[in-house]
Amino acid sequence: MKKIGFIGTGVMGASIVKHLLSAGYEVHVYNRTKSKTDELVELGAIWKDAPRDIAQASELIFTMVGFPEDVEEVYYSENGIFNGVQSGSILIDLTTSQPSLAEKIYETAKEKGTFSLDAPVSGGDLGARNGTLTTMVGGDEEAFETMKPIFMTFSGTLELQGPAGSGQHTKMANQIMIAGTMTGLTELLVYAKAAGLNLEKVLKTVGGGSAANWSLQNYGPRILKEDYSAGFFVKHFIKDLGIALNEAEKLGVNLPSTLNAKKLYDQLEDAGNGDDGTQALIKLWWEK
Amino acid sequence: MKKIGFIGTGVMGASIVKHLLSAGYEVHVYNRTKSKTDELVELGAIWKDAPRDIAQASELIFTMVGFPEDVEEVYYSENGIFNGVQSGSILIDLTTSQPSLAEKIYETAKEKGTFSLDAPVSGGDLGARNGTLTTMVGGDEEAFETMKPIFMTFSGTLELQGPAGSGQHTKMANQIMIAGTMTGLTELLVYAKAAGLNLEKVLKTVGGGSAANWSLQNYGPRILKEDYSAGFFVKHFIKDLGIALNEAEKLGVNLPSTLNAKKLYDQLEDAGNGDDGTQALIKLWWEK
Repeated sequence: MKKIGFIGTGVMGASIVKHLLSAGYEVHVYNRTKSKTDELVELGAIWKDAPRDIAQASELIFTMVGFPEDVEEVYYSENGIFNGVQSGSILIDLTTSQPSLAEKIYETAKEKGTFSLDAPVSGGDLGARNGTLTTMVGGDEEAFETMKPIFMTFSGTLELQGPAGSGQHTKMANQIMIAGTMTGLTELLVYAKAAGLNLEKVLKTVGGGSAANWSLQNYGPRILKEDYSAGFFVKHFIKDLGIALNEAEKLGVNLPSTLNAKKLYDQLEDAGNGDDGTQALIKLWWEK
Repeated sequence: MKKIGFIGTGVMGASIVKHLLSAGYEVHVYNRTKSKTDELVELGAIWKDAPRDIAQASELIFTMVGFPEDVEEVYYSENGIFNGVQSGSILIDLTTSQPSLAEKIYETAKEKGTFSLDAPVSGGDLGARNGTLTTMVGGDEEAFETMKPIFMTFSGTLELQGPAGSGQHTKMANQIMIAGTMTGLTELLVYAKAAGLNLEKVLKTVGGGSAANWSLQNYGPRILKEDYSAGFFVKHFIKDLGIALNEAEKLGVNLPSTLNAKKLYDQLEDAGNGDDGTQALIKLWWEK
């Protein structure tokens, strides 16, 4: 059984490591804040002092950090993965990050005689805990096939979308869709409340027909309970939409609805709500 | 069994009349273009020459016409319903129209000793044909209870949302939500195609997680087949979004995402696509 390294044990990363440990793998872990690995070490994971050390000790190396800058650092800094990686290893970035960075990592990996996959996930805390994440993979078929059983320890849906960067592009497409469902749900509720409707009834009725969607189903009831805790952080959604809009610009396509959504979420963050869940968008109207 | 009148036998109206005939009701029909009632008359419906005549011959009178102006005319013109209606009748407007007009009809109806319900539907052709429409009702409980079994001949979901106008307001909330799913789906595909992804794969992956929605599920595959035939007309969606934005303004709430969607659909209609289905929004990108 190949040794696994895992860099970035935040809420989702930690859940994934637990699935890997449960499946019997030896897992080496590193996280910027060491204390976040304590529970995992108790469960059998092995602490390493830097991404480089993880790379030296492991053959399959996962990264799941915050922003593209963090990915860049974890791979390319002096203590980074590329200064320790063994030839034949597979590097898998689970972070939602720039497609162009995924392509760059792929090229560097190739030069070092290693493989690389970009594999951002969707499904949030709950999906990570239950092992039902949607995992969107870009890279070579060979590396994907090797990784398949390991991805399946934490994925409900898994698909190789195409060459390096395609996993990230698919995740961007996913976030563009969610920008539509979240803004639509928010304005639905804003309108319905202003019109004096019974909001529970409206959500039930509207959610049963051609307006049905996951956000309405899952976030609608939370908004009515004023539960703005994060399944998915506003600040991370803004990062994702920023990447999507940047990429769209590079690709020469205009995404007016996504841009509009990004502006609304920017306003929400500027008002101090970056650590809320994305359903907190309604605060732009209801807390004024 | 009470006699039913039905004014406006377009694609959806005709399907509803068939359900009423199948349930054994005597149905009097009127339509601006008479030929559209031919099939219904063959099935047993009785032609009348004007809305007024329908009102004189029936106790439960449905209207399902195009625009608020048409509703206004059918109710208030010299040959209109209010010049023929019998006291104790129930008037039911299935048209998606202005909440304020629904309230006005309710008041006039009351003066005439009759009842009125606003009951716009969602679910399109297919929902009408299968009798699974979502019917959103505003008005008095008593009239609603009387109408319930009749509504159920063509509805899958049925709910009294509140007083007169509440059915229309709920339908507006529904359309606001759909504006989000349609713009999101369109931009998802625009992005994914520009990024060179496999669109079938992307729809399958994205549709299986937290971005899942009815529009993606139903219109996504049609767009990939370049099937832009109307389940729901662009011109009617524009009408609905126009009403929603007008009402929102009156209610003092700002709906930037809905406004953005309306502008995009306006562009699409200006380009000559008003008779396409709403999934044709993608033409703004793909046919340039």
